[in-house]
Amino acid sequence: MFESAELGHKVSKSDYKKEVPVLREELLHAQLELKESTAFQVIILVGGLDGAGRGATVNLLNEWMDPRFIQTHGMGEPSDEELDRPMMWRFWRALPPKGKIGVFLGSWYTWPMLNRVYGKTKDADLEQSMGRAVKLEKMLVNEGALIIKFWFHLSQNEQKKRLESLEKDPLTRWKVSERDWEHFKAYDKFREVHEKVIRQTSTPDAPWLIIEGADFRYRNLTVGKMILNAIRERLSKDAQPSQKILAPPFMPSIDNINILKTLDMTQCLEKDEYKKSLKKYQRKLNLLIRDPKFKYTSVIAVFEGNDAAGKGGAIRRITGALDARGYQVIPIAAPTEEERVQPYLWRFWRHLPRKGRVTIFDRSWYGRVLVERVEQFCSEADWMRAYSEINEFELQIVRHRMVVVKFWLSITKEEQLERFHAREQTGFKRFKITDEDWRNRKKWEEYEQAVTDMVDRTSTHYAPWTLIEANNKYFARIKVLKTLCNAIEAKLKEIDDDGVDYLKKSKKKK
Amino acid sequence: MFESAELGHKVSKSDYKKEVPVLREELLHAQLELKESTAFQVIILVGGLDGAGRGATVNLLNEWMDPRFIQTHGMGEPSDEELDRPMMWRFWRALPPKGKIGVFLGSWYTWPMLNRVYGKTKDADLEQSMGRAVKLEKMLVNEGALIIKFWFHLSQNEQKKRLESLEKDPLTRWKVSERDWEHFKAYDKFREVHEKVIRQTSTPDAPWLIIEGADFRYRNLTVGKMILNAIRERLSKDAQPSQKILAPPFMPSIDNINILKTLDMTQCLEKDEYKKSLKKYQRKLNLLIRDPKFKYTSVIAVFEGNDAAGKGGAIRRITGALDARGYQVIPIAAPTEEERVQPYLWRFWRHLPRKGRVTIFDRSWYGRVLVERVEQFCSEADWMRAYSEINEFELQIVRHRMVVVKFWLSITKEEQLERFHAREQTGFKRFKITDEDWRNRKKWEEYEQAVTDMVDRTSTHYAPWTLIEANNKYFARIKVLKTLCNAIEAKLKEIDDDGVDYLKKSKKKK
Repeated sequence: MFESAELGHKVSKSDYKKEVPVLREELLHAQLELKESTAFQVIILVGGLDGAGRGATVNLLNEWMDPRFIQTHGMGEPSDEELDRPMMWRFWRALPPKGKIGVFLGSWYTWPMLNRVYGKTKDADLEQSMGRAVKLEKMLVNEGALIIKFWFHLSQNEQKKRLESLEKDPLTRWKVSERDWEHFKAYDKFREVHEKVIRQTSTPDAPWLIIEGADFRYRNLTVGKMILNAIRERLSKDAQPSQKILAPPFMPSIDNINILKTLDMTQCLEKDEYKKSLKKYQRKLNLLIRDPKFKYTSVIAVFEGNDAAGKGGAIRRITGALDARGYQVIPIAAPTEEERVQPYLWRFWRHLPRKGRVTIFDRSWYGRVLVERVEQFCSEADWMRAYSEINEFELQIVRHRMVVVKFWLSITKEEQLERFHAREQTGFKRFKITDEDWRNRKKWEEYEQAVTDMVDRTSTHYAPWTLIEANNKYFARIKVLKTLCNAIEAKLKEIDDDGVDYLKKSKKKK
Repeated sequence: MFESAELGHKVSKSDYKKEVPVLREELLHAQLELKESTAFQVIILVGGLDGAGRGATVNLLNEWMDPRFIQTHGMGEPSDEELDRPMMWRFWRALPPKGKIGVFLGSWYTWPMLNRVYGKTKDADLEQSMGRAVKLEKMLVNEGALIIKFWFHLSQNEQKKRLESLEKDPLTRWKVSERDWEHFKAYDKFREVHEKVIRQTSTPDAPWLIIEGADFRYRNLTVGKMILNAIRERLSKDAQPSQKILAPPFMPSIDNINILKTLDMTQCLEKDEYKKSLKKYQRKLNLLIRDPKFKYTSVIAVFEGNDAAGKGGAIRRITGALDARGYQVIPIAAPTEEERVQPYLWRFWRHLPRKGRVTIFDRSWYGRVLVERVEQFCSEADWMRAYSEINEFELQIVRHRMVVVKFWLSITKEEQLERFHAREQTGFKRFKITDEDWRNRKKWEEYEQAVTDMVDRTSTHYAPWTLIEANNKYFARIKVLKTLCNAIEAKLKEIDDDGVDYLKKSKKKK
């Protein structure tokens, strides 16, 4: 795998001097064209061995190109705000917008590899991390990003020479730490892990490009030209890679039965009973959130449902039980300018709460497979891939010990009609009913199909959908509260008083 | 000052029951109208005594209104990302956008008051903090924000009763901490400090509204109605408060001399000397940034200058000396959608770096008093107030031990013409010269006036302007590098090895 990067590649001083000015001008050109077009973002990962010149080459790239449109990220120790969110959060917040270049020295590969080399994790853990990395990159590529992954390699002999020469020069001595020598001693182990990672994560969309790091002229020219060619080629193509749908079509509805039709929509609650239950579950919710262990988790509650199904009312019954400082309600509307130049899920990642907090999404990332699918706001390929991207997103949240609850508030077509009419007649609710609601209503069956598919494809054991029979508002609100309480309660039970998950602990004991 | 809030205000249960539903509906209406208009944001500060019902009332407001368009902030312990920036940063990042309501339980008043009561600071410190608060609020009001400041008061007797009754009920016992009783014992001291703060910060734009906290019905209705009336009144007016300019006009140029004309524009550097100096100062800069003490400070470098004065080139000579992971270049262009619904300075606050890092602004907040003034993109009142707002902004940065350097790169009108022509003839620089540049050039004298006024009004001892004679690029770049090095060097000298400022330390010793 590293054979071609141990051949002693070299570029002569005179060739270098001749080529660099041309390359620089072309890189600047390409960068500007990219910036003007804002067609895609470039994500450059720089990995490899210590002493192979990663930092030096990245600095040079910044010197060659316009530093205003490059962001370089070191990704050292995470901040406390970052530790409170899933590991990928810090990468999401550092993603370059379309038109810009983001360079990552240290990426989603760094820690999983180090942990494996030092025996802190098992092969299975490494593979899981790699699986996640591949999924992330696949998604980014599908969103239009250009991913260039460089791997800077040195033979063991060259690495030793390189570290020694850095150490000899008083100007560069600081660059070599004890850790570097420690890593050097583990060269074979590193090589083994690196090879495995490169093998598993060199996908057709984002292969690793292995660069021999010994000769700086060769290294710099190669990296520069590769970036130039990659940007140029992508600029000359359509912004979006063509995505063919090879999947078989969804299941036809042969007997006209679907999950929504099996709901018992007659369920209801009397006002007295409702009032009693409301008090009970709001109190319970309040106590759960004030449990000392709650500071080790957090809640993401997603509300979707038919128009006029009572999402707002159900949300207010939750927030009514909470301290206003501890929650946030995020209404999802059209994306802003800053959100439109990022991958689809970016605008949801940015709202993930810190530990000990509750975030309620009034509509959510499911818009992709509901309204965007039905109204054809995005291509079929885009919403088709959303199912698995969403599952992955939620898995990461749950793995970070957060609670994810998802509600679909369902009403019948008749009930909706009544509510629309009632809203049109009530003064301060009139704003709630628009032409769009009437238009959506005409596509009732298409939405029903979309909901059915959504539930089938994204109701997971770690983040299940709860379907709420919402013809009766009282019944719906109590079912929402109850479900939420149960989910939090179950999560708290998994956490012991020191904030360690029960599951993780039992794993350790083995 | 608290007289009217110790009268034992009360609302009967029956009146309350009658009034609340009406108030709620009206509040919802007003909130929606606000959201639709996005004319301004509402910033509600809730301060006052422990046990006076601040939290309960804020929770109720969230219940009464649509929680999707309110954000409530507790402002507890700052995160490490927040500690790395000036104190106000965490408030800036929490500001509600236009159309929304932000509630702050705990505000820019909280810590200064507590510190004063407990003798950690002196009266002078408190007054300084209050001065800063007043300036911030004045600015927010001028930017169109509606600020409502509630102060929840209780007589000493009432506070005791309230804390005792909270403690008696097992359901609310958790709300009373030892700290609350400690505060209670210092009632008189608190009252004294509170009175002083309220007196000094009750401005015509944002007066404190003192609410008697004992009776929850009175408290809730009063707060609700005040918010309703305030929003309604503002919705009925123009979005921007009318700002009359009462200041005398700028100094006329009687002898046709100004600071720009006094610059010796013939200064230059030969290529050899330049190369030597460049190496020297880049090395120095690199060493300074790698000084262990640098992690206690950070650098904000601002670049302004005539079109084609060589800002980009000067910036690249700085970044060329730095590790790409340690700096960011922020090119200032038109504000994004999310920036347009915030006060002017918001889009600069958001880019303030963490400690140990360098942020370079390619154009900056000075756009307000340069291009926006000359091209009349904002009202005279807006750019006139910008001078002091900018001084205050920079003072906060410097007080937080950051280095602020500001460069005006100056070229003569003749030199600019030559560079424009040269750019039009050089292939890859052609993009750099646009119609706008030619248009700006026609307003050379107006820009010169704006620059002169800017320097006169914003060159402070803590953040001075450095005028760079930039007809000769070599000379300009070296002067920039040298100035930057000196500024960092001076700052590092103030900091001892434990990260304590020399000045602060000598203060302590007294």
